[in-house]
Parts: sequence; structure tokens; C-alpha cells
Amino acid sequence: MKIGELGEFGLISRIASGVANGKGVITGIGDDAAVTALSPGMQLLTSTDMLVEDVHFRRVWHDPCRLGRKSLAVSISDIAAMGGIPRWALLSLAVPPDTPLEFLDAFTRGFLAMAAEHGVALIGGDTCSSRAGLVISVTIMGEQEPGRIVRRSGACPDDDIWVTGTLGDAALGLELLEKGKLPSSVTVEEEHLISRLLDPSPRAAVGRALAEAGLVSAMIDVSDGLLADFGHIAELSALGGTIHLDALPLSPDFRAILRSHPSSHPDLALAGGEEYELAFTAPAANREKIVQLMKKSGIDARPVGIVTASPEVTVVLADGSTYAPQNKGYNHFT
Amino acid sequence: MKIGELGEFGLISRIASGVANGKGVITGIGDDAAVTALSPGMQLLTSTDMLVEDVHFRRVWHDPCRLGRKSLAVSISDIAAMGGIPRWALLSLAVPPDTPLEFLDAFTRGFLAMAAEHGVALIGGDTCSSRAGLVISVTIMGEQEPGRIVRRSGACPDDDIWVTGTLGDAALGLELLEKGKLPSSVTVEEEHLISRLLDPSPRAAVGRALAEAGLVSAMIDVSDGLLADFGHIAELSALGGTIHLDALPLSPDFRAILRSHPSSHPDLALAGGEEYELAFTAPAANREKIVQLMKKSGIDARPVGIVTASPEVTVVLADGSTYAPQNKGYNHFT
Repeated sequence: MKIGELGEFGLISRIASGVANGKGVITGIGDDAAVTALSPGMQLLTSTDMLVEDVHFRRVWHDPCRLGRKSLAVSISDIAAMGGIPRWALLSLAVPPDTPLEFLDAFTRGFLAMAAEHGVALIGGDTCSSRAGLVISVTIMGEQEPGRIVRRSGACPDDDIWVTGTLGDAALGLELLEKGKLPSSVTVEEEHLISRLLDPSPRAAVGRALAEAGLVSAMIDVSDGLLADFGHIAELSALGGTIHLDALPLSPDFRAILRSHPSSHPDLALAGGEEYELAFTAPAANREKIVQLMKKSGIDARPVGIVTASPEVTVVLADGSTYAPQNKGYNHFT
Repeated sequence: MKIGELGEFGLISRIASGVANGKGVITGIGDDAAVTALSPGMQLLTSTDMLVEDVHFRRVWHDPCRLGRKSLAVSISDIAAMGGIPRWALLSLAVPPDTPLEFLDAFTRGFLAMAAEHGVALIGGDTCSSRAGLVISVTIMGEQEPGRIVRRSGACPDDDIWVTGTLGDAALGLELLEKGKLPSSVTVEEEHLISRLLDPSPRAAVGRALAEAGLVSAMIDVSDGLLADFGHIAELSALGGTIHLDALPLSPDFRAILRSHPSSHPDLALAGGEEYELAFTAPAANREKIVQLMKKSGIDARPVGIVTASPEVTVVLADGSTYAPQNKGYNHFT
């Protein structure tokens, strides 16, 4: 069955039937607007992301369930980067009428599974037909106490620059797909990298924990590449930074694939987008407490550089010499 | 200059430069998420709409400034239908890279003018490239006291059914465009109808005033046609209704054009979408107070029917006989 046969209201019912209630939801799907209540003393955090077929995803790479998961994950990651608690989501879909119903069902299953994993309730959205590809627009709302919200602008000179997880995996995964690999026929190492791209895990719990412990001065999620994203922290904090290339956390799979694909470049770890790790700054005095918090959360994090008073962001090698990256991050339209 | 030459961050800066601050905005555009504070005792109202080129609008009909206005107007209309106060908006755009910068500038000007007219602050969004047409996704947030929010589900038997403004104008305007009329070469009457379609005025002030005065039991905006939209009230209130065809408010322009285009049909007033008027139900005892409130607000409204305990929605003629409409409202994908 195709979406065109089901109709708009059929599609909405089908999505709504799988939706669980959530904290603070007074009226969810089905009225002109959703009604929600913030927890006492909390401020509202809001972010939105659009995913366009053949720009952000390709159906030949992205199975619909992982596409549904990722559509929400990238928005949860924005709430994580503010130290917030994700709460409510809106999902809008422009769907080509010949889309099979199974595709939409699997997409919804993935989206709602990611929502359940992070305590997010789907409270509304919009559906319409598309004459071109599938377009997905997700808005997420979260909450946090005013004093605990972490902005990009709070970094201080001599703060450590930290990164969670590993960098470059998703970017190298994308390179493998662009070279013609298909998710269905890859090695275990390749599959790990491709999964990082197709099914990222937003660092919601750890972002919130860092904020609530008051340990970090500025935070951002790595969606455009560490160099560009730390650049946003530097710009908004009116500071700069030194990033140590050799300190960047690389996965064993990243290292293995890089050895077997010599045309790929280590700059992927520096400038590769879509990692959805967190980059944050924190006073050196908090180093031990951050290590302990990370150990408890089961997520790795390590210092990769230092915030500087001078406004340039530079990358240095182990011998102290400056490294000039070939690629500085992702920019739409260019 | 084309958007492709400006780049993503250039486009964001260009939009952000025109943005005014708003009530409750703590951190607007430029961080991972916007931070806002609800007024004390208020609940949050949230709604989202997607507009797709060649589905919801055509560039040959829709000049970019009015397209910008309408993109926000349809969302403000949803907050109006809940009796809420519109506050904050997020704007996401998927833009073909060859879009002229002037188009985006005029679109933004229109969007921000509509925002200013209704006290709405643009607090965030997303921009990306599109390989097909322009896709616009707007999320709006508003607020209202819990006891004053008006839902679709609150109608009672014997309540009056009311409609603001006039019906059928936008639908007949669309019919004129579809028959080949261009906005640049039409009569004054035709222009009025086409303007209702291309530049609707959301009934935000009057929706809020009705809710705050406690005069209405259920409310919805007329976006799919009165018959379909009152049908949503009836369904969620587990009731029905009788609509008097002769009571529907028609503009002089609608009547004039209908006379000169005999192929057009009076069902446009019953089932035509995109009117963005409000349909609401209210006890007959509130009739005089509603008339007074409407007079004060400068918006016309009139009773067009009665809520019934039996669950059917029927349309009747002046002689009491049942009328069978040819068209029951707009449904995407069909």
C-alpha cells in the first residue's frame, strides 16, 4: 500500500497510534496546538532540524528505521549540548505519494524508539505530500533550570577543551558510502563506522549530567566538525584555542580503515561532521571530577586542547608545529 | 547573487540581522537551542506547519514577501484557535542553491513583518539546500493560562456554531489562479479574493480575547474547510451539528465573482480550505457578549448553526431540507 492511498488523516492516525504519553504533556496530537507544562522553575529549550532526501540522506544507504532514529537523534543532541532534559518533539513530513506504507511504518518505529530511549513524547506535527523527495522537519523542546543551562559563549582562557567518544567515524563512514560501499555488504569495521553515520547516539544523559554538576563552561555538539564547532564556542566566547592533533580520540575501526584506504585523510577527525559527540570547555581544576563523571556514565571523554585569550583557533602537532587542515567543516550550499 | 554563493552561515546571519527581541526570550538565534521563559502560571502551546513548493504555493502566484507572511500566519492561526498568545517561532528552510538572494530577503522581510504584527520573536531555525523546490517549516510557540485554553473537544449540545469573517474567498481565489489568472492582472474583486489566499490574516487577537473572556466552548481555525473543521470539533466533542447554508458569511467580492464565473460553486464557502478564519462553539446565553466583543475587535462573526447531540454533521437549506455538499474538504495525498 502507498501513502497516497492511505491519505493524510490515515497517516496521522497511524503515527499517533504508537505514541506514548510523556512528562508535562497536557494535550498531545490532535488539536490545533499541543499543550505542555514546564516543570517548576525550568526554562524552555527549543531546537529544530530539517533532513532532506539526497542532501542529508539517501534511501539506498539509510534504511527507514535508522532514518527515523537519526531524525530525532540530531535534535536530542542539540538539547544535550545545552545541558537540557529532552521532553517533547514535533515531526513534520513531506512525503512523495508513492512512498510504501512499510517505509513510513519503519520510519515511525525508529523515531518512536529513539523517543522512548530518551523520554521524549511526540506531541504534534504536520504531514503533506511532496512532489520531490522526502523532507523531514523535527522540532524538539527540552527544559533545564536557568543556572544550569550551558551556552556556547561561556568559555574562559586556559579552560581545557574536551571531546566525548571518538571523532571521524561518521565522516569516514560517509566516505565509504560515497565510494560505493553499501551498508548490506561491508566488513565489521566498515559497518561500525557506517553505523556511527546512520544511527548516531546523542549524548543526552552525559550532557545533562555535566551541566547539572556545574563542571563545564561552554558546550556544543559536533555536527559540522570539531574545528568548526569549537570555532563557534571560540567566536561566541570572544576567545581562541589550541587543539592538539595527536590528542583527538580515534576509534580502532577508524585507524584500521584509514590504514586500508590510504586515500582517506586524518583531517576527517578534525573536520568531519555528523559525529554528534559533545565538545565542551571546563576549568582545569574540574579535570578529575569530569573523569569520574564520565566513568560513571560509561562514555569516554578526553581533553584535546586549551582555550586561549588570543582569538585564533590553531591545530598543533606533537612537536609544537602548526598544522594546516585541508578541510574546515561542513557548510550547506557550498 | 544566489544563495549558493552566500553560504549557510551567511544566510543565517542575513535572516538574524532583522530579528527583534521578544517577551521571554533569554537566548535567541545562535546557540544549539533557544532558551525562553514562559510567563508565570502559563502553559506552552506548540504547533508546526510545512509549506512545500508546488504543493502549498507556486512562485508564479506567490510573491516572496507574501509567502513569508503566510508561512508564519498559518501557524499563528493555530495558536489563535487555542485562544493562546503567540510568542516564539522557529523557521527552517530547504532552499534550491540557485534561489536569488532578493527572493530570500523579501521572504524574510514578509516573515518578520508578520512576526512584528503579532508580537512573535524568531528564536531559531535551520537552513539547508534542497535539490527540488523550496520547503518551509515553521514551528510556533505560544502561551496561555491553563483554564483559558480552548480545545476542539469542549462543544456542548445546543451551543451555537460561529464563524469569523467570510468564507470561500481564499478557495475561490485559488480557483481563479488555477484557471490561469495571474495576481498581476486581475480586477479589484479578483485581487481581494486572491489576497485572502496569498496573504491571510490570522485571527490572533480575537481568538485570545474570546478565550480570555471565557465565552467559547470549542474552537478551531478554518484551514481544511468549515465542514471538515467543524467535523473535527464534532468528532472530538462526540457530538454533531446542523449548519445553515444560507447563514454562511460571504463577501461582496465572493458573490460578485460567483455571478461572473458560473462554473464556480457555492460549496467553496462550505468546504474551501485556507480561510484561516475561526470556527467556534458557544452557549446561546453568550450570544450578546460575543457580538459586543466582536464589535470591539473590529472582526465580524455570526452564528451559522447549532451543535446537536446526535453525532452527524448536516447542512440544511432555508426550507429545512438537507443539502448534500459535493466537496467535503482538503485531504493531502488524495
